[in-house]
Amino acid sequence: MLERFSATLDAGLLERFDGLLDRHGYENRSEAVRDLIRKALVAEEWQSGKAPVMGVITLVYDHHQRNLLNRMTQIQHDCQASIISTTHVHMDHHNCLEIVIVKGKPSEVRALADRLTTLKGVKSGNLSAATTGRRLT
Amino acid sequence: MLERFSATLDAGLLERFDGLLDRHGYENRSEAVRDLIRKALVAEEWQSGKAPVMGVITLVYDHHQRNLLNRMTQIQHDCQASIISTTHVHMDHHNCLEIVIVKGKPSEVRALADRLTTLKGVKSGNLSAATTGRRLT
Amino acid sequence: MLERFSATLDAGLLERFDGLLDRHGYENRSEAVRDLIRKALVAEEWQSGKAPVMGVITLVYDHHQRNLLNRMTQIQHDCQASIISTTHVHMDHHNCLEIVIVKGKPSEVRALADRLTTLKGVKSGNLSAATTGRRLT
Amino acid sequence: MLERFSATLDAGLLERFDGLLDRHGYENRSEAVRDLIRKALVAEEWQSGKAPVMGVITLVYDHHQRNLLNRMTQIQHDCQASIISTTHVHMDHHNCLEIVIVKGKPSEVRALADRLTTLKGVKSGNLSAATTGRRLT
Repeated sequence: MLERFSATLDAGLLERFDGLLDRHGYENRSEAVRDLIRKALVAEEWQSGKAPVMGVITLVYDHHQRNLLNRMTQIQHDCQASIISTTHVHMDHHNCLEIVIVKGKPSEVRALADRLTTLKGVKSGNLSAATTGRRLT
Repeated sequence: MLERFSATLDAGLLERFDGLLDRHGYENRSEAVRDLIRKALVAEEWQSGKAPVMGVITLVYDHHQRNLLNRMTQIQHDCQASIISTTHVHMDHHNCLEIVIVKGKPSEVRALADRLTTLKGVKSGNLSAATTGRRLT
Repeated sequence: MLERFSATLDAGLLERFDGLLDRHGYENRSEAVRDLIRKALVAEEWQSGKAPVMGVITLVYDHHQRNLLNRMTQIQHDCQASIISTTHVHMDHHNCLEIVIVKGKPSEVRALADRLTTLKGVKSGNLSAATTGRRLT
Repeated sequence: MLERFSATLDAGLLERFDGLLDRHGYENRSEAVRDLIRKALVAEEWQSGKAPVMGVITLVYDHHQRNLLNRMTQIQHDCQASIISTTHVHMDHHNCLEIVIVKGKPSEVRALADRLTTLKGVKSGNLSAATTGRRLT
């Protein structure tokens, strides 16, 4: 069910907002406002920490590092969050990029990211905060 | 001059937005929407880099560090951005917190922050992105 | 070829550093120092903008949204950065999570992320800054 | 009391680290390593949330907004964190920039920042995470 709400803005601010939409390629103001709202809500999901979120862990590593693959697998099997999928990209002879998609409480997802990114041989790692989308209509 | 614009949202998303406003203490939706828009515009001002911005540089340092005060003063006199004010807080026998308020192009403000925060004796430093407010009615 | 370098620290700071390593699960100081250095270098790669980087774009969307899949595919075919892979996760009846792994200049990768995340029907989108790992031994 | 510790790095990574130091104006590796460590520790202070931190709240507002000054003062008197100082800059006929330096638990400092930045008439507000410097020798 759609609802309409209106906001009052100074004309100059509205004009600058329209410029911003243009530069980012938004079709209309509604979509841009929805995006701003959803972004604020996803940030809050990660702070409040109760409902499940989706996390995307990106790892860049050298697969020649001894024992690294075993340890990464071990950690993934032991973790409390549930791992939805992993995607592996062979970037060159040495470097792999791996994406681990995880669902769980923010604290569980962060703990898994911490354990993986601190491994010896992992050159770069980070956690990106996504959402299950459930309550983001 | 005020203008009114309206956005269409799914009812569930609007309800969650209202919850967010409540938790952050907003009085009404208009003010929250304006804040989201202004935040996006300030971020863009710092990225595009042409118009002047305001920067707030926070430094925590030990004033016993030899020569530190002289060098900080020297750097502030040499910089291209214009320094509006500095505020000094004596936190304890050793530790000072200093706020340097700067106006200039983003690149000039960043360069000054870089030079100050890398000094020996400066324990912690960061740059906070503010605005002149000129076009943010 | 490995090199050894040494740094001088106040004993109290070193102790706190060791506490940090412990809490994050690092095995030794060398690995933690390497991680801090690599993180600073990856941040710089994304700022300086010349060498190719890897970007990980996360999109959460409702696949029932009319035309969304066509437009996403179109945009991916048109973009200047090269798309390495996409991974799709069916989260529930409505919600999909998609990971697009991209290689290119930071500006090209950001432009692609912008075009995808602003589409109507995309509820949440972000870009995570990764690296080709080439010069991060 | 100073201590020396050494880390082992691949020669190529060390070379890139030296380039980074150069570009940011560091005098030597020790100072850069100390800065990286201190930055990680300050981030942790703000996450763990028990020890007192310093917060720097930046507000840009239009002082013609009715009642704004009274409400800002009221909020500052009511808050649990202790306000160390405020600095006021008259940017132009309408726009003021105000810096509020606060000491307290991270949650208290965040609550104060939230109450101030959501006020009607405050165009832009943010909280910058600083430290008391106590344990950052």
